Amino acid sequence: MAPEQIATDVWLLVMFRALRRATARNLTLSSRIPPVIGKVRGLSVAHTLSASPSSILQESDRAQLPHGAPFPRRSHTCGALSSGDVGSTVVLTGWLLPERKVNHKLSFFNLRDSYGIVQLVVSAKEDEALLAMMRKLPTESTVSLRGAVRMRAEGHRRPYPQGDIEVAVVSCLLLNPADRNLPFLPSDTQNMANENVRLRYRYLDLRREALSANLKKRSEAAHLIRSVFYERDFTEVETPILLKSTPEGAREFLVPTRLTGSPSSSSPGQSAVSSTTKGLISTPLFYALPQSPQQPKQLLVASGAVDRYYQLAKCFRDEDGRKDRQPEFTQVDLEMAWVSWGEPDMSNDVSAPMALIDADDSPTQWRIGGLEVRETVEALVRRLWSKLEGIELPEQFQVTTYDTAMHRYGCDKPDLRVGMEIEDISSYLPTSVRAALTSREEIVEALVVRASTSDRAFLRAARELRSEEKTVERLEVAQNGSIDWIRQSEIIRRTADFAVDDVDMQINTALHLNSGDILWVARRRGRPEGGSTALGRLRLQLAGLAETLGDFTFPDDPRFLWVTEFPLFTRADADKEFLAHGRWSSSHHPFTAPMWQDIKKMYEGGVAEVRGQHYDLVLNGVEIGGGSVRVHDAGMQEYIFTEILQASLDRTETTSFAHLLHALRCGAPPHGGFAFGFDRLMAILCKTDSIRDVIAFPKTSVGTDLLFKSPAPASREVLAQYGIPAK
Amino acid sequence: MAPEQIATDVWLLVMFRALRRATARNLTLSSRIPPVIGKVRGLSVAHTLSASPSSILQESDRAQLPHGAPFPRRSHTCGALSSGDVGSTVVLTGWLLPERKVNHKLSFFNLRDSYGIVQLVVSAKEDEALLAMMRKLPTESTVSLRGAVRMRAEGHRRPYPQGDIEVAVVSCLLLNPADRNLPFLPSDTQNMANENVRLRYRYLDLRREALSANLKKRSEAAHLIRSVFYERDFTEVETPILLKSTPEGAREFLVPTRLTGSPSSSSPGQSAVSSTTKGLISTPLFYALPQSPQQPKQLLVASGAVDRYYQLAKCFRDEDGRKDRQPEFTQVDLEMAWVSWGEPDMSNDVSAPMALIDADDSPTQWRIGGLEVRETVEALVRRLWSKLEGIELPEQFQVTTYDTAMHRYGCDKPDLRVGMEIEDISSYLPTSVRAALTSREEIVEALVVRASTSDRAFLRAARELRSEEKTVERLEVAQNGSIDWIRQSEIIRRTADFAVDDVDMQINTALHLNSGDILWVARRRGRPEGGSTALGRLRLQLAGLAETLGDFTFPDDPRFLWVTEFPLFTRADADKEFLAHGRWSSSHHPFTAPMWQDIKKMYEGGVAEVRGQHYDLVLNGVEIGGGSVRVHDAGMQEYIFTEILQASLDRTETTSFAHLLHALRCGAPPHGGFAFGFDRLMAILCKTDSIRDVIAFPKTSVGTDLLFKSPAPASREVLAQYGIPAK
Repeated sequence: MAPEQIATDVWLLVMFRALRRATARNLTLSSRIPPVIGKVRGLSVAHTLSASPSSILQESDRAQLPHGAPFPRRSHTCGALSSGDVGSTVVLTGWLLPERKVNHKLSFFNLRDSYGIVQLVVSAKEDEALLAMMRKLPTESTVSLRGAVRMRAEGHRRPYPQGDIEVAVVSCLLLNPADRNLPFLPSDTQNMANENVRLRYRYLDLRREALSANLKKRSEAAHLIRSVFYERDFTEVETPILLKSTPEGAREFLVPTRLTGSPSSSSPGQSAVSSTTKGLISTPLFYALPQSPQQPKQLLVASGAVDRYYQLAKCFRDEDGRKDRQPEFTQVDLEMAWVSWGEPDMSNDVSAPMALIDADDSPTQWRIGGLEVRETVEALVRRLWSKLEGIELPEQFQVTTYDTAMHRYGCDKPDLRVGMEIEDISSYLPTSVRAALTSREEIVEALVVRASTSDRAFLRAARELRSEEKTVERLEVAQNGSIDWIRQSEIIRRTADFAVDDVDMQINTALHLNSGDILWVARRRGRPEGGSTALGRLRLQLAGLAETLGDFTFPDDPRFLWVTEFPLFTRADADKEFLAHGRWSSSHHPFTAPMWQDIKKMYEGGVAEVRGQHYDLVLNGVEIGGGSVRVHDAGMQEYIFTEILQASLDRTETTSFAHLLHALRCGAPPHGGFAFGFDRLMAILCKTDSIRDVIAFPKTSVGTDLLFKSPAPASREVLAQYGIPAK
Repeated sequence: MAPEQIATDVWLLVMFRALRRATARNLTLSSRIPPVIGKVRGLSVAHTLSASPSSILQESDRAQLPHGAPFPRRSHTCGALSSGDVGSTVVLTGWLLPERKVNHKLSFFNLRDSYGIVQLVVSAKEDEALLAMMRKLPTESTVSLRGAVRMRAEGHRRPYPQGDIEVAVVSCLLLNPADRNLPFLPSDTQNMANENVRLRYRYLDLRREALSANLKKRSEAAHLIRSVFYERDFTEVETPILLKSTPEGAREFLVPTRLTGSPSSSSPGQSAVSSTTKGLISTPLFYALPQSPQQPKQLLVASGAVDRYYQLAKCFRDEDGRKDRQPEFTQVDLEMAWVSWGEPDMSNDVSAPMALIDADDSPTQWRIGGLEVRETVEALVRRLWSKLEGIELPEQFQVTTYDTAMHRYGCDKPDLRVGMEIEDISSYLPTSVRAALTSREEIVEALVVRASTSDRAFLRAARELRSEEKTVERLEVAQNGSIDWIRQSEIIRRTADFAVDDVDMQINTALHLNSGDILWVARRRGRPEGGSTALGRLRLQLAGLAETLGDFTFPDDPRFLWVTEFPLFTRADADKEFLAHGRWSSSHHPFTAPMWQDIKKMYEGGVAEVRGQHYDLVLNGVEIGGGSVRVHDAGMQEYIFTEILQASLDRTETTSFAHLLHALRCGAPPHGGFAFGFDRLMAILCKTDSIRDVIAFPKTSVGTDLLFKSPAPASREVLAQYGIPAK
């Protein structure tokens, strides 16, 4: 007889009893025990008060549990069991879920581990003492048990994993009893506690299957991402978390250090510190946590140590609680040397590569550098959706320019799942009106919801929508299929400062208007600024309302879109503090290279017209990542800093940009990169609205950690070590 | 004719010239250019002053370089070229290394990228203008070039990669010129700048092949480690970097936050903060950076969300510059639920598992729990050494207990590459002397260097060593092969307070002493304390001196060793601040479980005798990692906190231990874990003494970053945001 078959019906229970006896014998001899039990009991009272006294495990049983005693390794995880195991005896470990009592001689329990749930059957017919013991065990206790796998009775099979089998328990060892009165039961998803309670007891909430599944999916996604990087010969490099604060760092976390600028601590290794703090005694010194590894990664690739860098990088931002932001977050970060425009066309002359870029106008045409970055990111995204979602994405994603996106969708991260497009109707206006628009650098646009096309889904929404956009006007096409523009449209009337009378027919025809169509008209500056226009916002409101009304469903399919060729500089406004001494600030960051075609314009002062080699990846209207080809020419970088952004040279010299400029002068290769927000990406993949659901130990929207109770005050003594005076 | 063959000899050079012309035409039209060039020139002067004027690229050439212009993708990396490519035309990108001028018509250069180095040949016979142009390019400039791969002349082949081939350059495009006067040349490893200069210009030093190789090896090691975890079904989970400070956190970094404890910011999400700071206006609040993810990982595994956790975790320690420590470091961190003692022996009764544990005394016997952790760590290490070093390690590593290690090697991290072992000679002493030793709980030990065995390698060292150990005495065995212990050994004479005369023969025989042997004798407390004994330190000094003398070479083979069963508690001394209110502090941390066999002793007050289920992994005398089975019994954990470590309950209640205790009460599974120091491990694998060589952007030994110039003072305005008063 095989060892497994000997005494399987008794050994574990016997072990449990023998160990309990042994422990009782050994431990109750000890004179130190009573106070301990007293303490334990004292602490447990609060948790057990509301439980029925008869259901409480005897205090004497409890104290004598053989905590730490050897127990056997499981033979299977709950999730690994299947009908193929029927007939086997198995050893399982897991959490005991609430009893379902059939009658006084028979009970079902579920046993859960992090791989699955299996149904347990315990029968008094087989072992009365075992049933009695297991009925005493508190829900969520951890146990080791032995039993026989068998098929469930035919009518009781369920179509989920392990739904066709059950385990008839032969013996059970209590490994760790749970309190009777837990803050909540993670298995009871019908009665979930409020989020703050669940965050406070995160170690209990994480036992909930949905969160456990999210963490595993996140780990799998990280594995897939790393696999693609590995196959493509990327080097994973860790960049510093303790960095230097930067001028753009208004929202950086500082980290005080016990290093001080006092002359006594000045050693050769410390010249950087002592030189900046010469003569100051005990000035507190600070590292800063990085908002992104932008500078280290550029320096790394500029060095040539690695050709292709990646990292799942920790980033930090000390900003006011914006919904669904975390003060720390993870970025899938990459940077590549020698990013290019692809293979040259050898049959043509030297201008061939540039001609190629302008010639092709396919929806996947990429007209800027950094093609290797695009290929890598697309490979990453394809792998994730293929393996995690079972969706095969196209080899190349659609590409649009910022300008086109703003014109067609009024948004720099268009949601392509919504069909309606905006039209520029300026050219249909009379010459005189067009001239007035041109002189103001303005255009007139329309968004038409057509009664007769697939737009119909939005028609009810179009009728009901009360938009808060002040600069748009709503027009309805009359029975005769046309609009009397001069009379109906104040925007058109006011566009010219003079009377016009021949507007109608031409626009009505050009727009193919029909009876019942509803449209919105807006006038705006021809060069778009910012992330959306009034009509763009209205388009999304229409879609949202149509969904609420039940007329429209956002398609499940992911619609990926590259948006490229953003304006490199944006007119500085009060919000943009960084380097905004002049009229201009960088739309993204000051290291983004201008488009090759626009370099001349940049040096000639046509700053507004300069497009950057920046690319955002947009999924269903959400920006999931972005990047750019960087400036590798130190002279150009310095021109951008000093002439366009008007940062003073002194300032850049003494800040962190000095070493970047010098690194470019040491023979930096052309390079470019990209970064995904990993938390946001995982929230999308886990189909949850909150990134807190894909983070093991998240903070609240205001940055507090309810589990670890941070942030918290520090003592005067601790602060003194850092040279920080207490208040 | 294939497109690649058309005009390969001219197109790139033509492109370079045409682009230069085009750029000159376009850019010099700009009125904005002159000041920029002025600035660039101004900055370059410092770097070019010492270079020979004739070798300086014309300023006019330089300004007109087509920075940012499209250039073709490389066809090969330098490292990918081989003799198989002979006859092909290739496009390469890389850094141009110094010219080796054969004569005025022929030069060699090397081209380096991060994959390898290939020799370039440029001949005036083929293209005079090309040679002239390339001779003007500054060393370390980045170029794109096209050329034909060919075999080197027979006498010029070298036995390194690409050592048998060369590329005859056809055309060359300068992508980015390097300054003429770099701080140092990374390719010139014969004249390396001092470390501080290299740290300051890390982006240049990283171009050095050795550092580049280290970073790649580190990335490869991380990949191998993750592969093993993935195969074993571990879940990678990111734990918070912004955590709560803990009582043991005397050397933690604090992170001030703009969140303050003012009532106005108190919202439901912030109850944790407001409750701890009620009534205080603008009290600065702090997160703390983790020294290890110990608590989050235990809470995670206690939750059951994941069965097996791992992370390459960032850790932080604000400690005084200990040589070769970094304020931030990386830990390979793992934790597993349900760690056990292995499969039970079914053929035996309930005491079988424990009997099994004590019965086997093989050198790989593991007598504590956490066997799954051991198996995982051994699999990780085996994979690393197999793939990176080509060394197949045994299936199981040797195991020793702390007690044995201290007795045999006088060290809790023995270097098994050194043969000599220490012997306890107490039992050879006369009964009366032994009684005196026993009453004092002391032993007498000897370390013998034998003239006639393999110890001979240490004999010269033994003669020359001048040890600083005060508690040892050195004896030499006379011609007659014995020692007159009473006369020669003061230690033996003083061990008893009375005269003894029959010591010699028995010890001399038992120790098998021979003429010429040299030995050291020491008396110490029988229960070892701390990490080494006097004889243990002396053993290593002997080996070190023997190596210096050239008599001994440390074997190359890695000797891995588990050291287990450490004392769970250590007598508190001044160094151990944490929780040392009583006589005892935790040897490792307060979460380590006692050995099952010692639980009774612990509750009975035999604290000194309690061994922990702790395990260190030692490689060649260096501790490379450690871990333990954790306490999962809340009552036991509380007993350890309050009764043994005498931390007050109030204090633990309000600190971070409260939630750990509660998590244990929510049905925590038995669990255990481990952590490697990844930087140290990589330094060993990269065969360097300094962990700075395996970190992309390291800090100096005093924690300063010479590249990013941190830490640095913060402005009064920034500090005010954090409620921190300036001095």
